[in-house]
Amino acid sequence: MAKALPVSPLALPLPNLTTVPGVRLGAVAAGVRYTGRTDLMLMSFVEGTTVAGVFTRNKCSAAPIDWSREALKHGRARALVVNSGNANVFTGQAGVTAVEATASAAAEAVGCAANEVFLASTGVIGEKIAYHRIVDALPALDAGLRDDAWADTARAIMTTDTFPKAARRDTRIGNTPVRIQGIAKGSGMIAPDMATMLAFVATDAAIPHETLQSLLRDATDSSFNCITVDSDTSTSDMVLLFATGQANNASVSGPADPALAEFVSALRSLMHELALMVVRDGEGATKMFSVRVTGAVSNESAKRVALAIGNSPLVKTAIAGQDANWGRVVMAVGKAGEPADRDRLSVAIGGTWIARDGSVVEGYDETPVVAHMKGQDIEIHADLGLGQGEATIWTCDLTHGYIDINGSYRS
Amino acid sequence: MAKALPVSPLALPLPNLTTVPGVRLGAVAAGVRYTGRTDLMLMSFVEGTTVAGVFTRNKCSAAPIDWSREALKHGRARALVVNSGNANVFTGQAGVTAVEATASAAAEAVGCAANEVFLASTGVIGEKIAYHRIVDALPALDAGLRDDAWADTARAIMTTDTFPKAARRDTRIGNTPVRIQGIAKGSGMIAPDMATMLAFVATDAAIPHETLQSLLRDATDSSFNCITVDSDTSTSDMVLLFATGQANNASVSGPADPALAEFVSALRSLMHELALMVVRDGEGATKMFSVRVTGAVSNESAKRVALAIGNSPLVKTAIAGQDANWGRVVMAVGKAGEPADRDRLSVAIGGTWIARDGSVVEGYDETPVVAHMKGQDIEIHADLGLGQGEATIWTCDLTHGYIDINGSYRS
Repeated sequence: MAKALPVSPLALPLPNLTTVPGVRLGAVAAGVRYTGRTDLMLMSFVEGTTVAGVFTRNKCSAAPIDWSREALKHGRARALVVNSGNANVFTGQAGVTAVEATASAAAEAVGCAANEVFLASTGVIGEKIAYHRIVDALPALDAGLRDDAWADTARAIMTTDTFPKAARRDTRIGNTPVRIQGIAKGSGMIAPDMATMLAFVATDAAIPHETLQSLLRDATDSSFNCITVDSDTSTSDMVLLFATGQANNASVSGPADPALAEFVSALRSLMHELALMVVRDGEGATKMFSVRVTGAVSNESAKRVALAIGNSPLVKTAIAGQDANWGRVVMAVGKAGEPADRDRLSVAIGGTWIARDGSVVEGYDETPVVAHMKGQDIEIHADLGLGQGEATIWTCDLTHGYIDINGSYRS
Repeated sequence: MAKALPVSPLALPLPNLTTVPGVRLGAVAAGVRYTGRTDLMLMSFVEGTTVAGVFTRNKCSAAPIDWSREALKHGRARALVVNSGNANVFTGQAGVTAVEATASAAAEAVGCAANEVFLASTGVIGEKIAYHRIVDALPALDAGLRDDAWADTARAIMTTDTFPKAARRDTRIGNTPVRIQGIAKGSGMIAPDMATMLAFVATDAAIPHETLQSLLRDATDSSFNCITVDSDTSTSDMVLLFATGQANNASVSGPADPALAEFVSALRSLMHELALMVVRDGEGATKMFSVRVTGAVSNESAKRVALAIGNSPLVKTAIAGQDANWGRVVMAVGKAGEPADRDRLSVAIGGTWIARDGSVVEGYDETPVVAHMKGQDIEIHADLGLGQGEATIWTCDLTHGYIDINGSYRS
C-alpha cells in the first residue's frame, strides 16, 4: 500500500495558506507504518478554544472516534493528534490502551487535561497500533510547533491520497475580520485500509461550543455528507472545527445571529471545497460528476435518489467510458426505493434534456451531450416531476484505477 | 455491445436437458438488434397451464413487465414471447403499442386470448423496439415449435451472458413423477443496456395458480433474491413458472400440502442453481463468493448485512485481488445500518476464524486463509453475536473485466 500512486488527473495545487491566530502545528515521521514520510501531526490550540465535531455513523467505529466523541462533550480543545498508516480500528482493549496513552502524552506535552485532547487515526484496520512511537515522538514534535506549518500537516495525514488538501477563507463576524483554514484527507469515501475521510478546520473566531456545533453540522450536511466515492462508509470518518477566539469578535447569540451570516457562508464554502477535493482524489478517478435531483417529494428523498445514481457502478462506469448512457440513470432512479413515476421522469446531461416525461425527447441530438461527456466535470440532472424536493451530490467515475488500488494485496 | 465477450472462467456446461410435456418451444433470428444470432424465443403451453410470476421492484419498469404483471392476474398461460437486444423500457406510448401488437400476434399464432400471452424483453433501454420484426417472425416461429428446443431458447435470450443457462430436476408429487426444467439469463444483477435477469421455468405438474404463486415466491426468496452482482436492480427482471398439468398428479390442497414436499425442495434447488449460474456469469467475474451472516437480530437484518458486505466495492475488489482483507468486512458490517456491536463481531474466511469478539484472534495464522483466497469459490462468514437471525447471499468479485464491459461506448 505504500507504493506511490500516480497523482489524480483532477488534482488541485495547495492554495496560498496563512496562519490562524491561536493555532500552532507541525508534523514528523514517527514510523507508525510508513517509512520515508511524515505520518504524525500535532495541532495545539490556545486556552479557551472551543470545538465542534461530527463522526462516522459506522457501527464498528475506531478507538480514536470513541475517544474524541467523548472528549467533545466538554466542548473545549487544546490539542489534536492525528496519525496515518494505522487506523486503530477493531483492536479491542489494545486500541483503548493506545488512545489513553496517546492523549495522556499529548496532554503532558501541551500542558492541558487529557479530555482536551482530540485524536484521529487512519490507515490499516485490525492491527495493533505502535502507539509507543507516537508517544515517544510527541515531546519533540510539540517543541517544534510553528504557526505556518499547515501544508506539512496536510501532507502528514495522507494515505492513498495523491495530493494534499487545504482551503482558506477570509471573512468577518459583524465588522471583525476572521479567518477559517482547514485541511482534509480522503480518496475513497473510505477504504478502511487507507482512505478514511478526515477534515480539521480552525478559525480565530470566538464562537461558543453549542453554536459552533450547530454551524459545523449544517456545513457538513451540504459538503462532506453530499459526496461519495464508492458508497463505503469508513470506521474513522471525522470532521472537527476549532475556534480559538483570538479575533476578538463581539459575542454571538447563536447559530442564527445575523452577525454570523458571512461566516456561515464562508464556512460552508470552505467545507464544500475540501469535500470536492476528496472526490477529485477519488481512487482511480478520471472524471468528477454531480447529480442533481429535483421534483422529488422531499429534499431527503431527492438526496437518496441522487446517491442511488451516484453510487451505481453502471452509471459510474458509463461516465468513465464517456458514454451518455441516460438509460442507466433511469434504472438508478427506479431502484432507489423512493417515490418515482416513470412517466413523469426527465433526465438531462450537461444541461441538455435527453428524456422528458417518460420517453426520449423527440429529435434528440446527441452532439452536445457527447461533447460534454468528454470533459472532466460531468453534470447529471434528473427531475422526478412529483414535488419540490431537491438535492445535489458529487462523486467520481469508476475505472481500472480503482480496481488497481483496491484489488492488490496489502503489503 | 455486440462484440463477443470471453466466456466466464466460472462457466458451466449445459446439463442434459429433457422435454416438459405440454411445452413446445423454439428460437429464431428476428433481427431486433443483433445480427447473426437468435434473439427471439417462443414457448407455447397446452390448454389448462397455470402460471406464477415475480417481477422487478424497479419503479421504472419495462412495458413488458407491466403487461405480464397484468396478464398474471388471470393465472393462465398459453404463450411466452421473449426477445433480446431491446428491453422496451422508458419508451412511453410506443412501448405500450409494441407489447399490445406482440401479444396480439402471439395470441393469433398460438390460438389463445392475448391475456394468456406473457412477454419479456431485455437489452438496451430508451430506444423504440422494432416490434414489427417480432410480429412478422412469430407465425413461422410458431409453426416450427418442438418439444426439445430448450438449449436453443436458452441461447436466444442471452445478452452480455457468456454462456447459456439451464437446469433440470426430476421429482415427484405424491407418487407421480414430475419434471421441472428452466432457463435463465443475466450477467449483471442487471445492466439496463444488456444484462437483465430473466428466468422461465416449466413443470408438467398440475398445480393451481395460487399455490404455484406461493411456491414461486418462496423459491425466489432463497435463490434470485439472494444474489447480487453490482447492486443495480434491473427495470426488467422477471421469473415465471408454468405448470402444464400433463403429469396428472393428484390435486394439491395448497403450498403446505405434504405431497408437495419433494417438489418444493426440487424447485428451490433448481432455482438456486439457475441463480448461481447468473452469479457465475457476473460481468467480469473471476471468483464467486458467498456471505453468510449469523447472530443477527433477525433473518431480514442478517440479509441486509450480508448484502452490504457482498455489494461493497472494497470487499469485491479485495476478493478479486485474493486479499483476505477481513477489515473491509468489518467496515461493511458497520456501515449496513443494522444492529451490530463491534465488540461482539466475529469474522471467518474459508472456515478459519480471523477475528472474534471485536479483535483479531490471538496467534492468527493467515496460511489457510491465503490458500482459500486463491480458489474460485470464496466463503465469508460474519457472526454478529446478537441473536438468531441468519442469511446467506452469493455474489462475485469486481474486476477490470467489469469496467471493460460497462465502461465502453454503446455501439
